Amino acid sequence: MYSDRGASKLKIIPLGGLEQIGMNITVFEYEDSIIIVDCGLSFPDDDMLGIDLVIPDVTYLEDNIDKVKGFIITHGHEDHIGALPYVLRRVNVPVYATRLTMGLIEHKLTEHDLQDSVRRKVIKFGQSVNLGEFRIEFIKTNHSIVDAAALAIYSPAGIVVHTGDFKVDYTPVFGDAIDLQRFAEIGHKGVLALMCDSTNAERPGFTQSEKTVGRTFDSIFTEHTDRRIIIATFASNVDRVQQIINSAFKFGRKVVIEGRSMNYIMETAQNLDCISVPDNTLIPIEQLKDYPLEKTVIITTGSQGESMAALSRMASDSHRKISITPNDLIIFSSHPIPGNEKPVTRIINALLSKGAEVIFQDAHVSGHACQEEIKLIYTLVRPKYAIPVHGEYKHLMAQARLAEELGIPHEDIFILNSGDVLELNGEGAEVTGKVPVGDVLVDGLGIGDVGTAVLRDRQSLSENGIIMAVMAIEGGSGMLVSGPEIVTRGFIYVKESDDMMDEMRELSFEALEDQIDRGVKDFNKLRSSVRDALSDYVWKKTNRRPMIMAVILEV
Amino acid sequence: MYSDRGASKLKIIPLGGLEQIGMNITVFEYEDSIIIVDCGLSFPDDDMLGIDLVIPDVTYLEDNIDKVKGFIITHGHEDHIGALPYVLRRVNVPVYATRLTMGLIEHKLTEHDLQDSVRRKVIKFGQSVNLGEFRIEFIKTNHSIVDAAALAIYSPAGIVVHTGDFKVDYTPVFGDAIDLQRFAEIGHKGVLALMCDSTNAERPGFTQSEKTVGRTFDSIFTEHTDRRIIIATFASNVDRVQQIINSAFKFGRKVVIEGRSMNYIMETAQNLDCISVPDNTLIPIEQLKDYPLEKTVIITTGSQGESMAALSRMASDSHRKISITPNDLIIFSSHPIPGNEKPVTRIINALLSKGAEVIFQDAHVSGHACQEEIKLIYTLVRPKYAIPVHGEYKHLMAQARLAEELGIPHEDIFILNSGDVLELNGEGAEVTGKVPVGDVLVDGLGIGDVGTAVLRDRQSLSENGIIMAVMAIEGGSGMLVSGPEIVTRGFIYVKESDDMMDEMRELSFEALEDQIDRGVKDFNKLRSSVRDALSDYVWKKTNRRPMIMAVILEV
Repeated sequence: MYSDRGASKLKIIPLGGLEQIGMNITVFEYEDSIIIVDCGLSFPDDDMLGIDLVIPDVTYLEDNIDKVKGFIITHGHEDHIGALPYVLRRVNVPVYATRLTMGLIEHKLTEHDLQDSVRRKVIKFGQSVNLGEFRIEFIKTNHSIVDAAALAIYSPAGIVVHTGDFKVDYTPVFGDAIDLQRFAEIGHKGVLALMCDSTNAERPGFTQSEKTVGRTFDSIFTEHTDRRIIIATFASNVDRVQQIINSAFKFGRKVVIEGRSMNYIMETAQNLDCISVPDNTLIPIEQLKDYPLEKTVIITTGSQGESMAALSRMASDSHRKISITPNDLIIFSSHPIPGNEKPVTRIINALLSKGAEVIFQDAHVSGHACQEEIKLIYTLVRPKYAIPVHGEYKHLMAQARLAEELGIPHEDIFILNSGDVLELNGEGAEVTGKVPVGDVLVDGLGIGDVGTAVLRDRQSLSENGIIMAVMAIEGGSGMLVSGPEIVTRGFIYVKESDDMMDEMRELSFEALEDQIDRGVKDFNKLRSSVRDALSDYVWKKTNRRPMIMAVILEV
Repeated sequence: MYSDRGASKLKIIPLGGLEQIGMNITVFEYEDSIIIVDCGLSFPDDDMLGIDLVIPDVTYLEDNIDKVKGFIITHGHEDHIGALPYVLRRVNVPVYATRLTMGLIEHKLTEHDLQDSVRRKVIKFGQSVNLGEFRIEFIKTNHSIVDAAALAIYSPAGIVVHTGDFKVDYTPVFGDAIDLQRFAEIGHKGVLALMCDSTNAERPGFTQSEKTVGRTFDSIFTEHTDRRIIIATFASNVDRVQQIINSAFKFGRKVVIEGRSMNYIMETAQNLDCISVPDNTLIPIEQLKDYPLEKTVIITTGSQGESMAALSRMASDSHRKISITPNDLIIFSSHPIPGNEKPVTRIINALLSKGAEVIFQDAHVSGHACQEEIKLIYTLVRPKYAIPVHGEYKHLMAQARLAEELGIPHEDIFILNSGDVLELNGEGAEVTGKVPVGDVLVDGLGIGDVGTAVLRDRQSLSENGIIMAVMAIEGGSGMLVSGPEIVTRGFIYVKESDDMMDEMRELSFEALEDQIDRGVKDFNKLRSSVRDALSDYVWKKTNRRPMIMAVILEV
């Protein structure tokens, strides 16, 4: 049924993306050829204090660098492209992607000064790339960003279809509907495995067309002709911005685009003709004051409650150019990503308390396929093996249940963990091993220099602060010649805690003198006696466990 | 219409609870009489690092201690009783509450060793308490904890009805339905103001009866006779636990109650006959192994994903007595409180990945009134003034809209802020002033000793850690005699950063010597030259801003 001319097996090795929504990166390996699908980042968990972003460990690629042929990128979201500028420094191979996706990648490469050192090629839908033993065909899909692609990955062991992130939109805002015919044709050839987006696999039914949001905007604009409209949405959702611009134009309003990421994505989309803006519709923010409030629309970042984004600054009166008034209608054209509910609610409360009206529902649709769409793709592709991807365990499980309902035998469905090596061909499929994977933490310019030990220290510092006892000892005699001085940060308000500071100084001194009197000269022992004394005292006095350090200088 | 025999106005002063769901405490003052309704805590915001809980600032009560007659508590949830043991130490006046509420308060007082120093009185529904110029009547309501009360507060300026937290449950699990007749009677007398629960004011319709959850349990138990059932719910929802026990008994299962808070609340409820447990149904956790898995039910804490709760420990294999297996069915009989979505999802994924089945929907109902119930209360009570309480701004606004729909004039609806002094009688109502309010942070044994400055330090320490340069200088000559030594925590992994540590030491030394060579002896100047040198270097090298301290010992 599926082509199987090779003697070897195909290896599929996810290096990330299977325990979370984020950090998507999957290795396909056949004999001496390796290609990588996507190279995304994830945002730090709550316990990764101070971390900016998280990228995958690509040791496996570095160890097999001679085999690696290139990166194939499905679409331009951060969880699919965000790690590229970091990983390309270690694994510099060509990058293949569709037009807008490449536009966004190039913006990143420029920021990281890599624009001249990375080879790249824009691929059209329907086109293929030959890389070693692989041929990769780009198939048109729909998603919450323009130019999203599914991939048909042809290998001697068979064809793997990877959906990327997708939904089925029969009436998309920009470009064509998903190329269901091509999915069917490839399905007819015989497909070894389907790797399908699981994000919405728990949700029954069909995801609504992006166009339904446009109709919602029209009806909101019709009802609210007397006030300014501010719409917060995802910076990368170019179609959403297009629809807001369409409604604004229809109702004779000028549009301001506010927020750094939204501005550069819009600029990229305009350069690539992925958005069409009627003349004299967009105005710079400085001209806002030249128009009546009710003749303007502001499209802004910050729909997730991000504290530094434009909407958040407006809500807290710290935006330099826009103040919220009772004449504003604010629309959240978004849904909070899990974990962001509280910051989003905080902003809504702040906006309401300024007298503004807030619309929070019905102005958003998802970019991911629900159950009926997932079933449609399975039914067109008819894979031998199902490998649910892009989700937390509960999402992958939900898709696995769908696959089983559709007749795929339980043993042919693989819920993989990151690092699993799945070897497969027409004869069989099994997990045969494990490669190193993990989270590499990016903090400022540092990549991977902050690990568990440093995070543990940050956690401890964040909870109770630090107390330091500093003293000088004369090397020869072992006598205390200065200190102990007590310094604290994040523990108590020092100015109102004279007694406690005095007592800590006194206790450190006694602990030290006691040891010195006994002839102890080992600095480690001296330090630990001071630490123990302070730690006991602080626990009894406050029931807190700040970090306690004793520093001894030898004079 | 409403009694108004007094010449003075009634003051209503919320000291908390109006910008959030939590920390409910409201002062009622008439001439020389003050009573306080509820005394709750709130849980710390994400930016209150290391804080255990938050209690209200009661300076106003301390300043008017001679007037204060007592605390009236509506029900036993933490956001209504949690601050009592802290506040009673400063404002020691009698506490009045219904039976279970008082049972839970007494548990707290005992924990804080206050059981002998606080006067208290249990009040029955229908009874009143006379306190100075006030008479307070307790009215039966329904809520997610037994013995919840609304209050009719009679003052010479008129009657205020305070609903407490409530829902309308015509078929409650324990005790009677809400006493709607009494609301109607009091409404007939004429009510000056209604202070009504806003939690669910955004939700249309009617909150379902608690009994519907019991039917859900029965049907789940019917379907899953072959496996152990673990149900996570709120420790304080005694009715929920009652219904689980009922289903377990009906299906011949033994019940284990697991989790510290659930155990003590159950014990209190059993002592007060608020729950009825058939003989031989509850077993201690140690006997679990004596029964077949499918003949047991575990009721556990941890439904909000709390990392230290029993369910969380089961999910992470760190519970000493219970391991999750594919033979387990776990039911979340709860809904995540905003902000807890992510930890709850993390636990669900962990449970699923052990092969357990997880039911997350339809096994919970809210304890708060939805729109139709709120309208019912307004219609029975027919207040002159509406004062929505118990909610974030958006919830209060939603209730204000309902009140307006019901015909209360816009100017007679008051959305207050904590600290507002609302003066009212039959002639009029207005906010006339402001009293001090605020969050008092509790950290270990410290109450209020951690403030903005300490939290700012903890924030900074949590993001990038700390670097300290320590050195000793000879007092007379101003010469460096030891150091600088560099110590860091939470910044980089020191063992892999020898070069950086060396460079920081060298730079500190140069900065210091440069100043000393120029004859500078002022320690402040010396310290800041070291800090500046390190700060510049670290920013250029890492793009991070750790806290930097220079400590100079004088020898």
